[in-house]
Amino acid sequence: MTYNVQVKVMPLKELLDPQGKAVMGGLDNLGLKGIEDVRVGKNISLQVNAGNEAEAKKLAEEATKKLLANPVMEYFEIAIN
Amino acid sequence: MTYNVQVKVMPLKELLDPQGKAVMGGLDNLGLKGIEDVRVGKNISLQVNAGNEAEAKKLAEEATKKLLANPVMEYFEIAIN
Repeated sequence: MTYNVQVKVMPLKELLDPQGKAVMGGLDNLGLKGIEDVRVGKNISLQVNAGNEAEAKKLAEEATKKLLANPVMEYFEIAIN
Repeated sequence: MTYNVQVKVMPLKELLDPQGKAVMGGLDNLGLKGIEDVRVGKNISLQVNAGNEAEAKKLAEEATKKLLANPVMEYFEIAIN
């Protein structure tokens, strides 16, 4: 069966996020008030062929650790839809 | 009150996603079998100061339409945590 797995990869909270800061600046320039903080990360959508949900999640986790996320700068969350 | 709003911006399904294809190639090279398709998009986390959830969502939607997503190439989803 094919599972739709969503991997969210975000910059660690301890680190500066220059892209997020740039977006904040852009929002200010557009006059959009009320947004206090922005952080920009990646969302990766995987179609995983596996026997069950747990297997699909394990495969997605392996792929994320080996290729998609850099643990020095990023944390990740995996969700199955 | 401050709401944590997650905006997911993904390439439209009709379009090629070269970054996703590159990740697919990388996964093949690593010998990870079972992942059939990869699409790479953005996840933007906003801290929105608003009176209620609906207002926060509206503000996030305005910011997304004006700055964060390009409707020619991307679609977006907004979720409030």
